[in-house]
Amino acid sequence: MRKDLGAKTILYPMPVLILAAYREDGRVDAMNAAWGGIADTNQVCICLSSDHATTKSIAARKALTVSVADAAHTVEADYLGVCSGNDVPDKFEKSGLHAVRSENVDAPVIQEFPLTLECRVSSIDDISEGTVRVVADIVNVSADEGILTDGKVDISKLDPITYDTVSHGYFRIGERVGNAFSDGKRLM
Amino acid sequence: MRKDLGAKTILYPMPVLILAAYREDGRVDAMNAAWGGIADTNQVCICLSSDHATTKSIAARKALTVSVADAAHTVEADYLGVCSGNDVPDKFEKSGLHAVRSENVDAPVIQEFPLTLECRVSSIDDISEGTVRVVADIVNVSADEGILTDGKVDISKLDPITYDTVSHGYFRIGERVGNAFSDGKRLM
Repeated sequence: MRKDLGAKTILYPMPVLILAAYREDGRVDAMNAAWGGIADTNQVCICLSSDHATTKSIAARKALTVSVADAAHTVEADYLGVCSGNDVPDKFEKSGLHAVRSENVDAPVIQEFPLTLECRVSSIDDISEGTVRVVADIVNVSADEGILTDGKVDISKLDPITYDTVSHGYFRIGERVGNAFSDGKRLM
Repeated sequence: MRKDLGAKTILYPMPVLILAAYREDGRVDAMNAAWGGIADTNQVCICLSSDHATTKSIAARKALTVSVADAAHTVEADYLGVCSGNDVPDKFEKSGLHAVRSENVDAPVIQEFPLTLECRVSSIDDISEGTVRVVADIVNVSADEGILTDGKVDISKLDPITYDTVSHGYFRIGERVGNAFSDGKRLM
């Protein structure tokens, strides 16, 4: 038996993306975003409130990094979501996180997050009152060696988290339950 | 120590979205998509190859449903990804899945997937050679009663899966590791 819940902004799994960009004065802006994903080969698409300090910095620098929040840094990831850079100008410093300049784009790579996409903005468009869509090309992927197996990202070492908008919870990824481009062949 | 992996189409967690639309002759087209997410309040954004049979049906009907693949239907979800509706016109029938017409949009609701967004297309744009971006409004969310707790979607009952593009694996969501809009306050 199915039930209608009405129009809701709900999807599973939603990512926990940590966006970072340089402010005009060179300080780091960073925020937590759940509305986004892959847009095309080597491209991401992320939707943001236009009034975030980080959104303004991304628009000004035409560059950002997108880090994947991992279970080990859930507190820091959530802090970047609840604290506003408009209210607390030294928000990033207070997080205890550290950043170094990307060698590929004009944006900071946060060292504590083990997987980071270094991105150059392709377009920023207003999509509704107060919301912009940022489309950005992935120029390089920077990964901590600790999450690699045979030179490739290992999801179990990365230990990424997902955001559940209903229970306001962060969850880690669990066991492998299937093989893509393979399991479905049984039905062919 | 960080390592540069170059430009890669990688993000965690990626969803396993089952898109369904009616073909011109009334049959069901369905496919598996990983490139998408929430675009705005009550809106999704999904990027697709323009040559998929389902993409053409979505464009013609200006409607689709987006179901969340769950661990119980990994084989069916993968089948909808590996089998092409251009090659096998009765692809959906062979899946063993069943669909009924949405009461809200001109698209089929697949009964076996416990969570489905019923969507009306807002825009379809070419974003690169052979790739389109579908932006669609979520008109209604249809949920199987079995995944609800106190009338709300319960992530542990839904048991959604995520796609790992590196290992070509499907993974379920694991344990809760934090509380959004809460844990981060410790750093404020």
